Amino acid sequence: MQGTVLYGPRDIRFEDRLEPTIINPTDAIIRISATCICGSDLWPYRGIQPIAQPTPMGHEYCGIVEEVGREVRNIKTGQFVVGSFATSDNTCVICQHGYQSSCVQREFMSTAQASLLRVPLADGTLVATSDLPPKELIPSLLATSDVLGTGWFAADVANVKPGSTVLVVGDGAVGLLGVLSAKQMGAERIIAMSRHASRQKLAREFGATDIVTERGDEGVARIKELTKGIGADSVLECVGTQESMMQAIKSTRPGGYIGYVGVPHGVSLDGEQLFFAHVHLHGGPAPVRRYLPQLIKLVLDRKINPGKVFDLTLPLDQVAEGYRAMDDRREIKTLLRPNGTK
Amino acid sequence: MQGTVLYGPRDIRFEDRLEPTIINPTDAIIRISATCICGSDLWPYRGIQPIAQPTPMGHEYCGIVEEVGREVRNIKTGQFVVGSFATSDNTCVICQHGYQSSCVQREFMSTAQASLLRVPLADGTLVATSDLPPKELIPSLLATSDVLGTGWFAADVANVKPGSTVLVVGDGAVGLLGVLSAKQMGAERIIAMSRHASRQKLAREFGATDIVTERGDEGVARIKELTKGIGADSVLECVGTQESMMQAIKSTRPGGYIGYVGVPHGVSLDGEQLFFAHVHLHGGPAPVRRYLPQLIKLVLDRKINPGKVFDLTLPLDQVAEGYRAMDDRREIKTLLRPNGTK
Repeated sequence: MQGTVLYGPRDIRFEDRLEPTIINPTDAIIRISATCICGSDLWPYRGIQPIAQPTPMGHEYCGIVEEVGREVRNIKTGQFVVGSFATSDNTCVICQHGYQSSCVQREFMSTAQASLLRVPLADGTLVATSDLPPKELIPSLLATSDVLGTGWFAADVANVKPGSTVLVVGDGAVGLLGVLSAKQMGAERIIAMSRHASRQKLAREFGATDIVTERGDEGVARIKELTKGIGADSVLECVGTQESMMQAIKSTRPGGYIGYVGVPHGVSLDGEQLFFAHVHLHGGPAPVRRYLPQLIKLVLDRKINPGKVFDLTLPLDQVAEGYRAMDDRREIKTLLRPNGTK
Repeated sequence: MQGTVLYGPRDIRFEDRLEPTIINPTDAIIRISATCICGSDLWPYRGIQPIAQPTPMGHEYCGIVEEVGREVRNIKTGQFVVGSFATSDNTCVICQHGYQSSCVQREFMSTAQASLLRVPLADGTLVATSDLPPKELIPSLLATSDVLGTGWFAADVANVKPGSTVLVVGDGAVGLLGVLSAKQMGAERIIAMSRHASRQKLAREFGATDIVTERGDEGVARIKELTKGIGADSVLECVGTQESMMQAIKSTRPGGYIGYVGVPHGVSLDGEQLFFAHVHLHGGPAPVRRYLPQLIKLVLDRKINPGKVFDLTLPLDQVAEGYRAMDDRREIKTLLRPNGTK
């Protein structure tokens, strides 16, 4: 089979790789229906997070089960499945608390931009639909695998409730789906920070009521103006830089909540500043598995359309162009279809 | 009257000061029944938090109302009152969310180690008892003003619930009352970190089930051993140093909660480490006013005895000796009675 490998900064190759096989009896092999490129893939792509050797890429996936190990009980050959970017047994005490992405057996998926994928701990990681879904829902189902699950987690832990005033920092796909999530949770006001017309448009379509283009202290001042001087109840931090984190902290009202899901790169928080900001801070790798059944149902019931974040669809063998388009911020997010899939 | 003034590192003087008077019509003047020395007073006392000029001290207090301004409605002359270390109008939107210690009109009290005290925003800051309380309850009522309220906030925001496994980092008076608070909230297991026999004893009396004497990575390893390898559900950070904060973060299970109430001094948190630790982090100056009615009732009903943290009682004019005893860690906390009070 062929798969995606990063060789160094901006050097993505699509090349022959060994087909995955069952290694552990709890594994499954799935034939990818669709995969995609994540904002977090751009960190190593840009060389900001250096790689030591050629590195396979991809952790968002859905597809058809080809084969299962002898200890897999719930997942069957031929089923359509979506899985989390983090594997989980879904039975350990951490999973029971809803933190499957910190499961004691967690591995991070990393070879999904390919035509076939081995998924460890298949029973605890994958969720199957009862029927094969209609083709037009594949993008939205793929989105639940990470980008929607992550935006949803941010909104959930930022305590978004009916009537909340919500700020979303970051207009990437996660931030945009944070807007969609906040809307689903009943937020009354959703302020999206964005300077890009196409992203502003999608934010509004997903439920944003206000767009703020200012950044830094000017951005904070604008948020305060919009929130009676005190800041937002709930802030979704969907970037992971020092600037975005400070934007989030300074824009939250005392007693308010920050859900941060942008993987922090070079972020350092001053304890005293955080203390007097009086904010709740929670984040980390989203426990997508916790939300998958609910999110898949919302998609199948056509209540949400998170697949709209994919503004570019390419055959998988053109994956390098997909990275370029996202790196240049020409496109929000690239969906990849293995060659031969419709 | 006479009051306590810090002149420089370890230079506490008890000296003549102007009697406080009503400045704003929302003020009250109270005659102090008891005041005390806070762990946080030791930061400037030790010179770690330098002062620019001679600085009056004290922010924990209870007493009898001597006089009220013309706009004070609920607090009456002659009542016994307890107040928070932070003033609050108790009506602004931040107060309504329960964060009175970030009230838009907040001032930090700072002249309470004296015989008379001006309390701004009396209606929103003070809570009166219906009758004059029995003398023997004064220490416990005084404790609600800060040290108990702060330990209670730590336990509350660390999500302590019936059945929780709780870790308390810090064996000062706040940490010890964090133990008491966790016990009141139904914690099943309460692990206290302490190396001091007298503090260990009081921790056990307040409800600690386990004492851990190790610190740093050895301390973390011991906590993991005691918690099935995953860490505590709820961690109360009651110190405010880099070491104590890291102890707290590393000892919390993924998805668990940290309530931090030790004012951070030189604490810096790495964003990526916090992200992958997967912990909830919340703290700040405790909104004591939110809890005062409940805590005062628990004391008056003799359900709790937080006054036990005062292991030294001195006449107010011996305040300097009280600071020395706490600085040397000879005593946990010093209660001060203005001369002439019984």
